[in-house]
Amino acid sequence: MAQLKQRVFEANMALPQHGLVTYTWGNVSAIDRERGLVVIKPSGVAYEVMRAEDMVVVDVQGNLVEGHYRPSSDTPTHLELYRRYPQMGGIVHTHSTHATAWAQAGLDIPALGTTHADYFFGDIPCTRPLTAHEVEHEYEKNTGVVIAQTLGDRNPLHTPGMIAYQHGPFCWGKDAEEAVHNAVVLEEVARMAWLACTLNPHLRALDSALQHKHFNRKHGPNAYYGQK
Amino acid sequence: MAQLKQRVFEANMALPQHGLVTYTWGNVSAIDRERGLVVIKPSGVAYEVMRAEDMVVVDVQGNLVEGHYRPSSDTPTHLELYRRYPQMGGIVHTHSTHATAWAQAGLDIPALGTTHADYFFGDIPCTRPLTAHEVEHEYEKNTGVVIAQTLGDRNPLHTPGMIAYQHGPFCWGKDAEEAVHNAVVLEEVARMAWLACTLNPHLRALDSALQHKHFNRKHGPNAYYGQK
Amino acid sequence: MAQLKQRVFEANMALPQHGLVTYTWGNVSAIDRERGLVVIKPSGVAYEVMRAEDMVVVDVQGNLVEGHYRPSSDTPTHLELYRRYPQMGGIVHTHSTHATAWAQAGLDIPALGTTHADYFFGDIPCTRPLTAHEVEHEYEKNTGVVIAQTLGDRNPLHTPGMIAYQHGPFCWGKDAEEAVHNAVVLEEVARMAWLACTLNPHLRALDSALQHKHFNRKHGPNAYYGQK
Amino acid sequence: MAQLKQRVFEANMALPQHGLVTYTWGNVSAIDRERGLVVIKPSGVAYEVMRAEDMVVVDVQGNLVEGHYRPSSDTPTHLELYRRYPQMGGIVHTHSTHATAWAQAGLDIPALGTTHADYFFGDIPCTRPLTAHEVEHEYEKNTGVVIAQTLGDRNPLHTPGMIAYQHGPFCWGKDAEEAVHNAVVLEEVARMAWLACTLNPHLRALDSALQHKHFNRKHGPNAYYGQK
Repeated sequence: MAQLKQRVFEANMALPQHGLVTYTWGNVSAIDRERGLVVIKPSGVAYEVMRAEDMVVVDVQGNLVEGHYRPSSDTPTHLELYRRYPQMGGIVHTHSTHATAWAQAGLDIPALGTTHADYFFGDIPCTRPLTAHEVEHEYEKNTGVVIAQTLGDRNPLHTPGMIAYQHGPFCWGKDAEEAVHNAVVLEEVARMAWLACTLNPHLRALDSALQHKHFNRKHGPNAYYGQK
Repeated sequence: MAQLKQRVFEANMALPQHGLVTYTWGNVSAIDRERGLVVIKPSGVAYEVMRAEDMVVVDVQGNLVEGHYRPSSDTPTHLELYRRYPQMGGIVHTHSTHATAWAQAGLDIPALGTTHADYFFGDIPCTRPLTAHEVEHEYEKNTGVVIAQTLGDRNPLHTPGMIAYQHGPFCWGKDAEEAVHNAVVLEEVARMAWLACTLNPHLRALDSALQHKHFNRKHGPNAYYGQK
Repeated sequence: MAQLKQRVFEANMALPQHGLVTYTWGNVSAIDRERGLVVIKPSGVAYEVMRAEDMVVVDVQGNLVEGHYRPSSDTPTHLELYRRYPQMGGIVHTHSTHATAWAQAGLDIPALGTTHADYFFGDIPCTRPLTAHEVEHEYEKNTGVVIAQTLGDRNPLHTPGMIAYQHGPFCWGKDAEEAVHNAVVLEEVARMAWLACTLNPHLRALDSALQHKHFNRKHGPNAYYGQK
Repeated sequence: MAQLKQRVFEANMALPQHGLVTYTWGNVSAIDRERGLVVIKPSGVAYEVMRAEDMVVVDVQGNLVEGHYRPSSDTPTHLELYRRYPQMGGIVHTHSTHATAWAQAGLDIPALGTTHADYFFGDIPCTRPLTAHEVEHEYEKNTGVVIAQTLGDRNPLHTPGMIAYQHGPFCWGKDAEEAVHNAVVLEEVARMAWLACTLNPHLRALDSALQHKHFNRKHGPNAYYGQK
């Protein structure tokens, strides 16, 4: 697991470098699907002193396997998503500023441009509020449950993130690095959408043709962006 | 006092590092409760040339005990708060941009999300205006008086800061480091709330269950965030 | 071509330095008019590992002349503009935040001040939407076509950039360096106009006299700004 | 003049360090009142290559006294102000983002808080528009004339800056360093006022008592801020 710990450590350190977190307000995990083990950031440890060997290993039921620290308090959210979605290899949670503002406003982030469409197919959804019961019993697990309800039968890699109501963004990808990449994109897309909506609150979403064009330039069998 | 001077010096230097102050627009103090002495930043000294030994020591009545500089002109505000609240070990005043904007708008910062609820229980209050008499006679002391009126019988560590009307934020904590931490949080929370309110001016505050959940994850007997 | 590759490489590297791009979301090209060859950034290569020798050379019809990478997926847009406008020596495309927000809002950026008028004569236009057919057949080429339709018979060096609807800014100049300069200016002008319009949505454009004065201080036979 | 050139050079270099200018969009000057000579930035020279010896010396009528470059194209504005106001020892012009946005909106920056009142007594005025004739004949000189009209009989050190309509801020002080300080303050005050006004467009200005209190803490015979 040393290699995966190193990658998860570096993915966590990328969050402050990209300006996505204040203090310890974020966490990244990744899963080793063969062994059924998840590596995740420890809870409340400052980025300045954190080391790769401080990463915590748990199984998908949340049992501690390895580590001298408690795992992130958001671990049950990550595990709920890993159990449901085999496509997810890495998950990121942040309180990045503009994405969190949309979550506080309780609004989906509308698909207003090609920057958005390059990564997210359609609006970036905001979850429904949790009930008081869901908050009081297994709150973190229920955050994962409501994310899954919101995703429905969408391909999670075509909606590689969403915002939890009054809380903040969760993003994912095929591995931890891609999840962080999507978290950076979501914050920038949230900022652009916020700017556009303050100019004109009655904006129309992207035409279907343009949305398909941009998403398919980067994804799927006929992608022609990049070098592969 | 050399050790406390060093800590207060470093806490003051953290303000420009976190982007909370322009020029000399801020100050941090801490109190040694056993000796009844307060260490505070000198007035109007540039951060680039300030040294630990420039910190000023006064007693809680404001008498100069040690130091070759005048104490911060806001010292009477700090002392008024230290005299009233034994829970306060450190106090910070800044003119951080978004918190000050809410103070200029004369509005409480509404509790719109979990980022807020992790640190502040309920809205972050804005004080009432001072009367002309309060401004003209012992202005700085009266700023502390009106902060105390606004706090009322709340636990100051559950409302670890507020904004003074048309002025700016004051924050506190069990020591100077925690007070600075809360000042950073207040500014970020103020920024997120401003962004959310420009998207939708009619936002609802956090549900009570979610507010309790997040505040109690970090505070009180059943806290489970972090490592202790 | 080694020298032009070096210049185009440096012009591309200037984009992240000026905060205009996230990840690989931008590209710069330049043309050697004598040889009819265009040098452009490769598609999807990270700025941190890109080298001058990775730049791709194509002819103005888009045939690969030199390079071990695919050219930018936006190459057909650049070529369409080079074929139509002999005055263009360099072209830049970014998704810079504020310019893209105006593109998503579908609005021309109004000429509100002298900062704008120093570089752009009149509003910075937003193109019309592409039709579904234009998106589905030769999308990138058609982006160039609609930019040309929008320019009409204007001198492209007096309108050295515009925003493509729901997409983002394209800028140009007599060479790659000037094109990058204009992209930096467009983003700053877009930011100022956004700020001004949120204060007052019913702003008037610059008077004609002031617009001519500022534009002609820097351009044309009687320019008196700078040292030439 | 070598010493004043060095100071004016450093004051100019402080503008990009404080984030007030893009490219060459700003200039600082200072006057030697005994000799009647003004030192000012050369026109259009990049900050990265500018040296102290590149500063230009002119007399108060604008005649070139010393220098191998043309003076800033805004020199006649500076000279008009130096001729009228013996209190001015240094002048700064920038296109700093938020101050320029207020100028483009054509609005005075309202005195909304103590941050403002510490430096500016009352609103920061926006000049009237220049007439077409004023733009076409001695434009830069007339910019100084309209600033003086707007100041009226106010003490220029109590209103140490204003914004020129659809253009941007001009600031001044007893020397170049103080003028730059005031330009930094004006930009931050403009940003805070913009944020406050987007929360609540119907804000009230500071009470007279609070305004006098803060201004007089830093200015005049009974000042008690700082160390003098």
